[in-house]
Amino acid sequence: MSGRIRDWGFEPGRMIPGKKNAITDVPGVTVGHYTIENERHHTGVTVIVPREDIYYHRCVAACNIINGFGKTTGLVQIEELGQLETPIALTNTLNVGLVYDALVEYTDQICKAHGDILKSVNPVVGECNDGSLNLIRKRVIGQKEVMEAIREASDSVPEGCVGAGTGMVCHGLKGGIGSASRIFAIEDKIYTLGVLALCNHGMLEELNILGIRPGDTIRERLDSSLPTEDCGSCILILATDLPVSSRQLKRIVKRLSAGLARCGSFFGHGSGDIAIGFTTSYDLVRDSSCDIENYHIIREDLLNPAFAAAAECAEECVLNALTAAHRIKDCHCLEEFRQLL
Amino acid sequence: MSGRIRDWGFEPGRMIPGKKNAITDVPGVTVGHYTIENERHHTGVTVIVPREDIYYHRCVAACNIINGFGKTTGLVQIEELGQLETPIALTNTLNVGLVYDALVEYTDQICKAHGDILKSVNPVVGECNDGSLNLIRKRVIGQKEVMEAIREASDSVPEGCVGAGTGMVCHGLKGGIGSASRIFAIEDKIYTLGVLALCNHGMLEELNILGIRPGDTIRERLDSSLPTEDCGSCILILATDLPVSSRQLKRIVKRLSAGLARCGSFFGHGSGDIAIGFTTSYDLVRDSSCDIENYHIIREDLLNPAFAAAAECAEECVLNALTAAHRIKDCHCLEEFRQLL
Amino acid sequence: MSGRIRDWGFEPGRMIPGKKNAITDVPGVTVGHYTIENERHHTGVTVIVPREDIYYHRCVAACNIINGFGKTTGLVQIEELGQLETPIALTNTLNVGLVYDALVEYTDQICKAHGDILKSVNPVVGECNDGSLNLIRKRVIGQKEVMEAIREASDSVPEGCVGAGTGMVCHGLKGGIGSASRIFAIEDKIYTLGVLALCNHGMLEELNILGIRPGDTIRERLDSSLPTEDCGSCILILATDLPVSSRQLKRIVKRLSAGLARCGSFFGHGSGDIAIGFTTSYDLVRDSSCDIENYHIIREDLLNPAFAAAAECAEECVLNALTAAHRIKDCHCLEEFRQLL
Amino acid sequence: MSGRIRDWGFEPGRMIPGKKNAITDVPGVTVGHYTIENERHHTGVTVIVPREDIYYHRCVAACNIINGFGKTTGLVQIEELGQLETPIALTNTLNVGLVYDALVEYTDQICKAHGDILKSVNPVVGECNDGSLNLIRKRVIGQKEVMEAIREASDSVPEGCVGAGTGMVCHGLKGGIGSASRIFAIEDKIYTLGVLALCNHGMLEELNILGIRPGDTIRERLDSSLPTEDCGSCILILATDLPVSSRQLKRIVKRLSAGLARCGSFFGHGSGDIAIGFTTSYDLVRDSSCDIENYHIIREDLLNPAFAAAAECAEECVLNALTAAHRIKDCHCLEEFRQLL
Repeated sequence: MSGRIRDWGFEPGRMIPGKKNAITDVPGVTVGHYTIENERHHTGVTVIVPREDIYYHRCVAACNIINGFGKTTGLVQIEELGQLETPIALTNTLNVGLVYDALVEYTDQICKAHGDILKSVNPVVGECNDGSLNLIRKRVIGQKEVMEAIREASDSVPEGCVGAGTGMVCHGLKGGIGSASRIFAIEDKIYTLGVLALCNHGMLEELNILGIRPGDTIRERLDSSLPTEDCGSCILILATDLPVSSRQLKRIVKRLSAGLARCGSFFGHGSGDIAIGFTTSYDLVRDSSCDIENYHIIREDLLNPAFAAAAECAEECVLNALTAAHRIKDCHCLEEFRQLL
Repeated sequence: MSGRIRDWGFEPGRMIPGKKNAITDVPGVTVGHYTIENERHHTGVTVIVPREDIYYHRCVAACNIINGFGKTTGLVQIEELGQLETPIALTNTLNVGLVYDALVEYTDQICKAHGDILKSVNPVVGECNDGSLNLIRKRVIGQKEVMEAIREASDSVPEGCVGAGTGMVCHGLKGGIGSASRIFAIEDKIYTLGVLALCNHGMLEELNILGIRPGDTIRERLDSSLPTEDCGSCILILATDLPVSSRQLKRIVKRLSAGLARCGSFFGHGSGDIAIGFTTSYDLVRDSSCDIENYHIIREDLLNPAFAAAAECAEECVLNALTAAHRIKDCHCLEEFRQLL
Repeated sequence: MSGRIRDWGFEPGRMIPGKKNAITDVPGVTVGHYTIENERHHTGVTVIVPREDIYYHRCVAACNIINGFGKTTGLVQIEELGQLETPIALTNTLNVGLVYDALVEYTDQICKAHGDILKSVNPVVGECNDGSLNLIRKRVIGQKEVMEAIREASDSVPEGCVGAGTGMVCHGLKGGIGSASRIFAIEDKIYTLGVLALCNHGMLEELNILGIRPGDTIRERLDSSLPTEDCGSCILILATDLPVSSRQLKRIVKRLSAGLARCGSFFGHGSGDIAIGFTTSYDLVRDSSCDIENYHIIREDLLNPAFAAAAECAEECVLNALTAAHRIKDCHCLEEFRQLL
Repeated sequence: MSGRIRDWGFEPGRMIPGKKNAITDVPGVTVGHYTIENERHHTGVTVIVPREDIYYHRCVAACNIINGFGKTTGLVQIEELGQLETPIALTNTLNVGLVYDALVEYTDQICKAHGDILKSVNPVVGECNDGSLNLIRKRVIGQKEVMEAIREASDSVPEGCVGAGTGMVCHGLKGGIGSASRIFAIEDKIYTLGVLALCNHGMLEELNILGIRPGDTIRERLDSSLPTEDCGSCILILATDLPVSSRQLKRIVKRLSAGLARCGSFFGHGSGDIAIGFTTSYDLVRDSSCDIENYHIIREDLLNPAFAAAAECAEECVLNALTAAHRIKDCHCLEEFRQLL
């Protein structure tokens, strides 16, 4: 049951997915979830770990704010320096502070293990609002939960109602985590680009699954209890092994919005749609003593496959989040309406 | 023959178009074209005139750079001041300088008519590259052509191979000018939002017409002479009578990119995709002597209909540009493949 | 002893200060500090409260990132919506997460008092690194300290080594909190603009006090233990009662950087220089039911007095932070070298 | 007579100037002026040529908009691609279109000489308003004048009332062109950074010459015919041979504003202050066939000397423009008041 959009017979886009068709197809990238589900809470935290020891071996990074009605932390410094130095953690809106602090604690422990004393770190925490299924003001995600998610991180990426996705709603149906990847050649070299999305955005009526728009029919079959207004948010995390500068990476990351649009989003007012990307292609060693660093960078006019891959992956992430999610309380899931597709 | 996408039986989006389904549904907005077609040239200029006497009665304006591989002028000042003070002119890439100068001349004449002496003006000129059908380095659009386009401006909006659209190529087929509009209510007031697009962007294989993707089949039927790479550009001009601040207008203008994405664009590397918007809702009188100006501004969380309208209009503009265009030389048009839809 | 730069006989700028020459000259604005000083810690938190009940009566706001090597939270949403809905809290770098969470808790309590349930809030937390005088990894500022600072907030603004400024270092000397204000007329109306700065930036050799550069001499008199590299950060908070849009306010906020430059800063690599501003001129009522909101906005070309005031206030803030600070451990203070001026 | 600020006995900043103390100290960079002076016109054009054959051997570039009330062209593409492919031309406000077109013509001729056909080019044209000394609406700078300025370009940089600076006014006195440079070591390698500024900005009363503020006295000595309002603009062009990415270069270019602030500017409302920079360190060969390009890039935390140099050069440019300029009509020059310094 459930499964992924390709299990349902749809093939979003024209390019070839990676082996797992997930962000973890990019070598070294892992994902961990911690989920809380009980009477009062459907929430959690999801971490994307770019590489082991990311604090000492930073990645080139970039971000794009599609709609800035959101609270993601760390973007000011990513924009200035083009670097990422922590795992990226996703959680619910009101939990950002505690998850931020947990990433400080995590980095402090890493430093101690290196015999160092932590002085500064730029934690990156994204969020969507799961307040309709989670008693959000209780802020139940703390150090323990974040540490556990990092510890459990692997190349397997559960989707749907898991981790930060547990309580999310997307296009009026149960949403959550989705992932996808693409592989492509530039000249004769093979590269991988993967995306993980936390999907909590979009209106039911606008939902577009490769040209099929089941929203009006779903609305009719249900009582009118479904929200009719666009709300929520979408956080998109992009990983690649393509050798690109932070400026080029920002160009790639900008194309993620096209995938949301293809599924019917118009980036609604209340939707804090934020995209963050990193490339594992360089190892920005902390406390390097070289005055000159050497970068091999892809020629600018060869970027189109990466642009197309970003758009395709984002589209497939949203669809995978929808197909993987199960019904929670009165929040229905797409699987219930599969025969409409 | 040819015609618009609705004449072909398709209805993009969910909202209601205005009477003409064109940017000129926004009261006071007019559009003029000047077209040059001969052995060496398929090119022209298109002007969007926000209101009569725009230099003395400026509009609140905003812009969004989707992909900045383009030469549009005037955006620095629009971004800073949120104002538009000339008609917006669209033309071919190498003609930007002369069209810019023509807008200076035009404004100089306006000033003279007011008994003033022109001291400064911020001409807004957008461009796409029509070099495959136009001997572009000749720069055949000058003062005469721009003045004529402004003089001819009316509320009728010819589409396809006309004005700046004459030599444009879109998704591998003949492109050019397209327009569309939407009307919507916020509380009990009716507003109009319209878009005009100069469409010279996109790959054939990615073309998406409400879920139908005819590109691969078209490619097969033709020899391989069609370009396979994404190139070109798209300039999108949005007009509305919604009372919004320039910050809010920028948010609306950003949603235009969603329409391009729905038609299959991923904002290719070479595609200078630029969006500019204005609202006719205020009259920014030059040399006002009031120290305090009064603005009625829509409540922020009521913007969603305008966001949705922007996305829908942009999508329909691209489709109208494609359906309206006719074959020129070896650049085929969508009408030739209408039976595939 | 100590005192302010005007007590030392210097008059920065050409404009007239407000009564207290502090950010709290703007009616309704209050400032509170909580200070921790002991063997291991010199740190604290400073809050700027724009008005009582800021969550329900938001302010128009804007920000400018001078140098983005910093962790300030909340700027993404300020940039998008032009609104501020919490007090602004300043603290040390690693404490951002816990102070963020404290502002969530504070807002939660406000909501409860209104009979509401908090669903979302955008806490604004700025930071500088006091790691040379504070065992920063311990993160000793939490809910209690933030709540206390808010509770104590008044129109009195202690400067120097207090609150978030307790452990800060500026131009190689003891820094911390400084404030200043200016009053000015536009047409026949009087307005106030005030700034509070958390000063932890700049090199000793570059220090410029109205044309006097005592840095080299100070360096000679001391052993070489002073840092020679630019580091630290400066957070600048601007308040005004001028009726301006968020776009205009951003223009004003941008001028704060001029004040830092006049004191000798070149916005060093490690200096996360961030400026945030708000105007108390409008009351953005939460859950308003009006579809149209009315704004009286100053005419654009009358903004110069506000621009000049921002630059002057920022300059005087830095100088007041330096004159008010006292020596802590081996971090000397300007007062020790007053005879050089 | 006249001369440079160092000839007057002042030494702005702490770093060491290059041999010519001009932008042309950066190897390969040349500057050319074309000046028109007659009864009706004091105007001209100044070109900065980054290297011979810049269209085929592009430079890494970046820009920063300090105050966007200006018409500079080409910034959209510089921001997106981080590349410069034409000489930078400076001229008067209304002449931008014709100078833009002249750069197209220039590039077209270069292409022809290479046996190519020009298809696209991004001309960069900056402007200030010399309307108080020039009958600006006549737009007397065209192809001939631009071509001549490029042809005459050399490593000698006349300052003051020359080229685009001919009719400019700065801090209420005669302004125009100024230049300066700094050399510095990073590890054991020597680098050069130079700036050329077109100075048409600032208020007389705010003028600050290394702590001396002669404005009020000058005002008294003159009739009240001098403008009291900040107006004009400043265009700053930065060149360096430091190996930096476009992101890093943007950080350097941002520091130019500090130099303007030190001389008393607060970036007035009407002052279109724009900064553009390029590094000659890489040769971005057009139509390269390498898929991967190799960049040696300076380590991020070593950038401070370049930041300080940018600020110092900008300050010295303004002062050199003022000391070099001579009186024109009723626009007085600083030299007349030299005894006040």
